Amino acid sequence: MNKVDIPAIIVARLPIYLETLELMYKEGIYKTSSRELGDRIGITAAQIRKDLSQFGEFGKQGTGYSIPNLVAELRKILHVDKIWDVALVGTGNLGTAIARYPEFNHRGFRIVMCFDSDPALIGTKVGDITIEDSATMIERIREANIKIAMLTVPGSIAQQVADDLVKAGVTAILNYAPVALNMPPDIIHVQHIDPILQLQQMTYYMD
Amino acid sequence: MNKVDIPAIIVARLPIYLETLELMYKEGIYKTSSRELGDRIGITAAQIRKDLSQFGEFGKQGTGYSIPNLVAELRKILHVDKIWDVALVGTGNLGTAIARYPEFNHRGFRIVMCFDSDPALIGTKVGDITIEDSATMIERIREANIKIAMLTVPGSIAQQVADDLVKAGVTAILNYAPVALNMPPDIIHVQHIDPILQLQQMTYYMD
Repeated sequence: MNKVDIPAIIVARLPIYLETLELMYKEGIYKTSSRELGDRIGITAAQIRKDLSQFGEFGKQGTGYSIPNLVAELRKILHVDKIWDVALVGTGNLGTAIARYPEFNHRGFRIVMCFDSDPALIGTKVGDITIEDSATMIERIREANIKIAMLTVPGSIAQQVADDLVKAGVTAILNYAPVALNMPPDIIHVQHIDPILQLQQMTYYMD
Repeated sequence: MNKVDIPAIIVARLPIYLETLELMYKEGIYKTSSRELGDRIGITAAQIRKDLSQFGEFGKQGTGYSIPNLVAELRKILHVDKIWDVALVGTGNLGTAIARYPEFNHRGFRIVMCFDSDPALIGTKVGDITIEDSATMIERIREANIKIAMLTVPGSIAQQVADDLVKAGVTAILNYAPVALNMPPDIIHVQHIDPILQLQQMTYYMD
C-alpha cells in the first residue's frame, strides 16, 4: 500500500505505539499483546490490530508481539531508524527549553543548529550549540541539507520565517508559534503545537 | 447523545474547527461552507458535516454556516464559552514561555497561579503572577477550586507533582514533561504535549 493511502489518523497513532513499546521495553517487558498495549494507551485491541495490519504482519495469533521486533519495525515505518538533523529557529524561553528537551536523541532527532535574530543571543550557547544569526539561516540550512525545523519565534514573524525555511529546503516544520502557517501542503509538512487545542479537548468533558 | 459516546477523534477535531472559524472571522469572513472550511484544514467537507451532525443542526443546505453562530455553538460544546482558571506548575524556561503565550485569554483560559520549588524563583513574577512555593500548591489550588493544571516540571518529578494535583482536586492536566503520566482515567483527563510524537508523524512521509 502506498504510504499516502494510509489515513493520517492511523499514522498519528504509530508514534504513540512506538513510545509506549519503548517504555515497556525500558521496564523490562519484552512481549506484549494488542490487549495489553491497548490498555496502556486507552484504545481497543481491535484498533491496534487493524492499524498495524496496514503495514504488515507483526504478531502471531496467541503469542502476541515481540517488543524489540515491533519497536524496530515501527522505527523503520516512521523513518526514525536513523537520526534526523533538526534546526531550531528562535532561542527565547521556549526555544531554550526545547533545545534542552532530553528525549530527542534516542527517539530519532538531533538539534544541530540554532538561530536567533537577537544580537544579545547570537554567539552564545544553548547546550552545546552556538546560536547563529538568523540572517544566515537559509544558506546554513541549505548547505547542511537539513530537512526539519522547529519554529519557536514570536507569532508576528512566524510566517516570514517559515517561508524562509521553505526556501532553505526544509520539508517539515514543527510550529510552536501561536499562529496557523499558510504553507504549500504539497512541498512541506507542518505540525502545530498549540496548548489550547489540547486544553479544549479536555474541557469538552468537564462541566 | 451522551458526550462520552462521541468518539474522541471527533472531539479532537472540534477545537481545530473552532480555531479556524475564529481566524476566518478575524479576517472578516462571516459565512462559510463545509467545503471551504475543509480546504483550510485539509479534511473533506463530508467529514466536517458528519462531525458537526453529532452535535446538532448548524448549517442550512445551500447557504452554509454563519461563522459567528457556529463559533458560539462550538464554544458551548467545548465549554469555553466561559474562562477557565489554570494553574501552571514549573516556571523554568518552558513554563515561563507558556505563561506568556498570548492566546489563552480569548480562547477560554486564564493562568491565575504559578508554582515552583526553586527558592530563587518563589516570590518573583511571571507576567502579572507571583510565583508561589510548590509546598503550598495542594492547599492553594483546592481553595481556589482550580480544575486545570499545566505541568512544566522536569520529568523526574512529574508523576509526583501530578499525583499532588489530583489531591488538589484538579481534573485536567496538560503535561509538557517528557514522561507519560500514570493517572486514574476515571477521575482525570491528561493530554501530553510531546514534540517527538509530532515530528514522527512528519518523518513517516519523508525519505
